[in-house]
Amino acid sequence: MRIKVTLQPEDLPKNWYNIQHDLPEPLPPPLDPGTLKPMSPEPLLRLFAKECVMQEVSTDEYIPIPEEVREAYLRLGRPSPLYRATRLEAYLKTPAKIFYKREDLNPAGSHKPNTAIAQAYYHMKEGTKRLTTETGAGQWGSALAMSCALFGIDCTVYMTRSAYLQKPYRRTLMEVYGADVHASPSGLTKVGQKFLAQDPNHPGSLGLAISEAIEDCVTHDGTKYSLGSVLNHVLLHQTVIGQEALEQMKMFEEQPDYIVGCIGGGSNYAGLAYPFMREKLKKKSDTEFVAVEPKAVPSTTRGQYRYDFADTGEMTPLMKMYTVGHTYQCPPIHGGGLRYHGKAPSMCMLIDKGYMSSVAYNQNEAMDAAITFARTEGVVVAPETSHAVKGAIDIALKCKEKNEAKVILFNLSGHGLLDLKAYEDKINGKLIDYSPDEAMLKESLAKIPMVA
Amino acid sequence: MRIKVTLQPEDLPKNWYNIQHDLPEPLPPPLDPGTLKPMSPEPLLRLFAKECVMQEVSTDEYIPIPEEVREAYLRLGRPSPLYRATRLEAYLKTPAKIFYKREDLNPAGSHKPNTAIAQAYYHMKEGTKRLTTETGAGQWGSALAMSCALFGIDCTVYMTRSAYLQKPYRRTLMEVYGADVHASPSGLTKVGQKFLAQDPNHPGSLGLAISEAIEDCVTHDGTKYSLGSVLNHVLLHQTVIGQEALEQMKMFEEQPDYIVGCIGGGSNYAGLAYPFMREKLKKKSDTEFVAVEPKAVPSTTRGQYRYDFADTGEMTPLMKMYTVGHTYQCPPIHGGGLRYHGKAPSMCMLIDKGYMSSVAYNQNEAMDAAITFARTEGVVVAPETSHAVKGAIDIALKCKEKNEAKVILFNLSGHGLLDLKAYEDKINGKLIDYSPDEAMLKESLAKIPMVA
Repeated sequence: MRIKVTLQPEDLPKNWYNIQHDLPEPLPPPLDPGTLKPMSPEPLLRLFAKECVMQEVSTDEYIPIPEEVREAYLRLGRPSPLYRATRLEAYLKTPAKIFYKREDLNPAGSHKPNTAIAQAYYHMKEGTKRLTTETGAGQWGSALAMSCALFGIDCTVYMTRSAYLQKPYRRTLMEVYGADVHASPSGLTKVGQKFLAQDPNHPGSLGLAISEAIEDCVTHDGTKYSLGSVLNHVLLHQTVIGQEALEQMKMFEEQPDYIVGCIGGGSNYAGLAYPFMREKLKKKSDTEFVAVEPKAVPSTTRGQYRYDFADTGEMTPLMKMYTVGHTYQCPPIHGGGLRYHGKAPSMCMLIDKGYMSSVAYNQNEAMDAAITFARTEGVVVAPETSHAVKGAIDIALKCKEKNEAKVILFNLSGHGLLDLKAYEDKINGKLIDYSPDEAMLKESLAKIPMVA
Repeated sequence: MRIKVTLQPEDLPKNWYNIQHDLPEPLPPPLDPGTLKPMSPEPLLRLFAKECVMQEVSTDEYIPIPEEVREAYLRLGRPSPLYRATRLEAYLKTPAKIFYKREDLNPAGSHKPNTAIAQAYYHMKEGTKRLTTETGAGQWGSALAMSCALFGIDCTVYMTRSAYLQKPYRRTLMEVYGADVHASPSGLTKVGQKFLAQDPNHPGSLGLAISEAIEDCVTHDGTKYSLGSVLNHVLLHQTVIGQEALEQMKMFEEQPDYIVGCIGGGSNYAGLAYPFMREKLKKKSDTEFVAVEPKAVPSTTRGQYRYDFADTGEMTPLMKMYTVGHTYQCPPIHGGGLRYHGKAPSMCMLIDKGYMSSVAYNQNEAMDAAITFARTEGVVVAPETSHAVKGAIDIALKCKEKNEAKVILFNLSGHGLLDLKAYEDKINGKLIDYSPDEAMLKESLAKIPMVA
């Protein structure tokens, strides 16, 4: 039985797919954080590479991947293989066929380099000398640090203090690639100083680290900023995953009935899903799309589809998205990449209009699924990815009840080798499930700005 | 320019290559630890799978890889890609072409699963219920734990106490796969109790952990033992690396002038080198073979080619090999996989007869090479592998002096994601170089048994 399909280097996609070409209606415009009125993309040029800003608003169906980016993709693990989980299927005794795309097989260990490489490349071309960014669990920070090393750009990373202290290996990995890493809140920015004054041991948050990275950027010449999820151009770069997977599923002679992935900002799942969603939007397929989020941060399952800030410091434009509120305090789940109050606007529109559904799990049930996966398929997935594994297993078990040989494809977005503490806690029965109570959620939802 | 060559799943080799078919003379027989006389392979059947014992003494040129082993290889990352290090070449400004084989791209992160999978498979077929083994840095232990999970065998690992305490993530990884992991020396064996009585905080050693694993095996029914390097059948299983690399170098249309790898017991290097050595032994090529060891454990560069015990507890047969003596106290270098007093007998014969040379480096210069490699090629290699990188870079720099466009191939035997402490120490200037003084070396060499 076929269990693995690989593509040759020359089969690496030549284009990213842009979902904005096919969305049921145009995305609502971002709003200026001061006036709360629609804003033009120009101010974004102070932060992002010009090419990325153009991609952010482009409605072209395909955008060419530059040759130097393709070469870096090639060097760093692309095309990535697609596997069939025959041992997991046998363990579950399900008639369903489970497939997974491997995005862990690059030196940074997750899907993040797909956009980090592209962003660093465009910045190198445009003469940027230094990039700032934020990181929570550290997957994004390591991907950008690695990409900056490849394209000769200095890199400064604001890492949430809790992760900085708990994950020294992630910090070292960024330093191996030559990046400067600061615990956030740091004393280096005004916003950081403000939060440090309130609490010298402030654990930080992704939203706060974003505020610090942006402030560092706009107060230093020759410095730009890079974001690892949520934005259209970031999701665009990730579609190299789904473009490859489309070809690989054809090689398996299978058509997915379900496509599953975990969502923090939404980029890994969009990367796999959107090229398949294109077929659905064009009414050529009726694949079901299931996004999986943590119960601890239930943006799409318990949040609201509204305009909200993308950061805690209220410095970013407002975007229309599912959000639990930008003041929501994300609980310290191990899947740090899922600790974000909002989700990507394009994905939120697709959920709102019923093209995609979502489901939430606690980290204990997700990590149980991850251990089952490790003992059957061999791969130790990231705590974020464990949510996707749990989602896929649940669908496979429903197929078992109904005796349906459905085809399930999920995104194995990263490995868990730098997150083994999550497994240790799970094995030792120390993993805590977090779910916000109504009052807590109500409070943070109430702080979302009212937009006319 | 071509930078990556991949093989399709159907190109996975169907045979391992057995160097014993082509060695310049038969290997000297192992000696009984009691009588110091040549011993037959029968007593090995109490420890190893029957099939492995037969492979240990086989002189067949090729040995078929069972289909279930090939499927597991496929699931766990084989065939592995072969890359050209064009960015490292450019950085070094060398006319040499540098290639590397990626053995880090499986869930255990090193070459070790190539034999762990095969050994676990044969044990499963032969009805073994439980396997014991030792591990130092943890690469071998994780590979065997993963393989036992795949084939439904219980797994007990004796991990040197120093590594057990310093590398909790490696321990957790083994536990994720369901293994029982004990700090060695443990109170579970007589030999462990003996060393614990001398020092309750004894840091352990690989040789001592071997003694404990063997004692556990021979004192428990249904239990067998598995070794991760040194022996002929282990090196045999690793030749899947070189069998793939032979094809991949043809696809690159290049013939290696130098083949480089790090040696602890010798298995990763043998795995890459022996299929190419076959050509040299048949006088079809004049490739140079360079084995790299740490100055801290200079078996082949300062040791003697003599019969010695394979373990500290003097329980194993004696083998003729380069050794610094089985009582040699290996300094605590980060490349734990290189902390072994002896080397594989077949490799030692090839070195002794001049078919292969060896060189030694300190860990600081090796880790400098590893950081250069990470910042150019992107991959963060294991501290063990850093020695191979250093070896390859030194040859490339000699090529630069002579303006020779030689072809260098090295084995990227494992990633360093669970060894980032080595990088942290290097970056912070805390890495210590160890080199035994003459008196220390003389003492351990004097304790090698005299054999008529």
